[in-house]
Amino acid sequence: MEKLTVIKVGGKIVEDDASLAQLLKDFANVEGNKVLVHGGGRSATKVAAQLGIESQMVGGRRITDAETLKVVTMVYGGLVNKNIVAKLQAQGINALGLTGADMNVMLSHKRPVKDVDYGFVGDVDKCDGSMLSKLINEGVVPVMAPLTHDGQGNMLNTNADTIAGETAKALAKFYDVTLIFCFEKAGVLADENDDDSVIPHIGEEDFKRLVEEGVIQGGMIPKIENSLSAVRSGVRRVIITKADAIDGQHGTCIE
Amino acid sequence: MEKLTVIKVGGKIVEDDASLAQLLKDFANVEGNKVLVHGGGRSATKVAAQLGIESQMVGGRRITDAETLKVVTMVYGGLVNKNIVAKLQAQGINALGLTGADMNVMLSHKRPVKDVDYGFVGDVDKCDGSMLSKLINEGVVPVMAPLTHDGQGNMLNTNADTIAGETAKALAKFYDVTLIFCFEKAGVLADENDDDSVIPHIGEEDFKRLVEEGVIQGGMIPKIENSLSAVRSGVRRVIITKADAIDGQHGTCIE
Repeated sequence: MEKLTVIKVGGKIVEDDASLAQLLKDFANVEGNKVLVHGGGRSATKVAAQLGIESQMVGGRRITDAETLKVVTMVYGGLVNKNIVAKLQAQGINALGLTGADMNVMLSHKRPVKDVDYGFVGDVDKCDGSMLSKLINEGVVPVMAPLTHDGQGNMLNTNADTIAGETAKALAKFYDVTLIFCFEKAGVLADENDDDSVIPHIGEEDFKRLVEEGVIQGGMIPKIENSLSAVRSGVRRVIITKADAIDGQHGTCIE
Repeated sequence: MEKLTVIKVGGKIVEDDASLAQLLKDFANVEGNKVLVHGGGRSATKVAAQLGIESQMVGGRRITDAETLKVVTMVYGGLVNKNIVAKLQAQGINALGLTGADMNVMLSHKRPVKDVDYGFVGDVDKCDGSMLSKLINEGVVPVMAPLTHDGQGNMLNTNADTIAGETAKALAKFYDVTLIFCFEKAGVLADENDDDSVIPHIGEEDFKRLVEEGVIQGGMIPKIENSLSAVRSGVRRVIITKADAIDGQHGTCIE
């Protein structure tokens, strides 16, 4: 199978002109088939504030009421996405901006209300890897915004890590997939105060041990659990690395 | 050649929930291959105002400074486009929202400054009908926002009528194309005060005569000139009609 790399970058990178320019240059240099998944939370918060809409976050997740949904649809699907697409085109990359609604690429359902009502937030049900792979085989590079739809006419705000994971899993039927999560650190650290202590490789057994030993803790646990789940679903490897090291040779490799 | 219909609707229709719902129902019923091109000016003006950006218009055209470009990229490419795409998906139409930057579908250059500096406004150089037709042959229905790019990383605001005309011309190499412009009147009227006086058919000769007779005047002259130019470039016919009559059986047919 041909190789394909899915790279997820957070808002911090894509919303700053200098770091975005560097990222897109590095991304253009990634060999083979590729997909970019982006966030955009800071821009959304900024535009929302300018529109007089207060951004409410619970555990790092945005509460998405009807007005906030409009903002994220504008910002993620329009401003951030099209800015990246135009800049990739300028690099000779045949980018295509997509939300989950476009070609029904990613269908979700509104998250049921339990302790918290997240509002118009989508939990993914299905990613159509078949249509994506047809485009990719034509040389197209999908650029995916963190938005899905419910099949009933509504857009839904969806976590970019989830979009990246689901895309990687769906494309694993067609390609040898590496999923790269850009992170603020150089990888999973053995010592959180030492940036040089990147753990190069984590498998299922290592993970259990590292959690028991307390080396891996907090928000890193679900991140690695999701990565291991992607690997179990056919993704070749997941790499957690810094945005300036997306060549697949750096960071922590989970497989 | 297979038939294809390009339908252009202005902002007024797509920005009102009830008229949008009716339009999308009618659009879903249009037989054969199809493309939707939309405006969104009213929403852009509204969002700009909420952001404290004044909308400056010259001769009905928006002056697009850097801040306004951000607004139209958000509103046309995000809010309006994705709302339409999600709602078409709910109708079982496999819609794909596109700007000219996506897959390099429509390349333009920034309009040179003459009497007026329109700012970040694009005049179209090239529409890639080949990639569009590949998607259309897969059952995809392109939904095009009035935005293009300059190939150097910048989005440009572009008139939706122009997008529709260029798309129709580019697709005329692959399909038997009908281009429908939705208009506030039922068609080109022989008597502007009589809505029942729609001229059913206008050819090159009729047009010259009707202009000489003063029946066709003002803003309708460039509209029909553009339509005749599309026909000369291979588009089968252009229809000017109301948004509630897009079945190709109503309005003024220019061919």
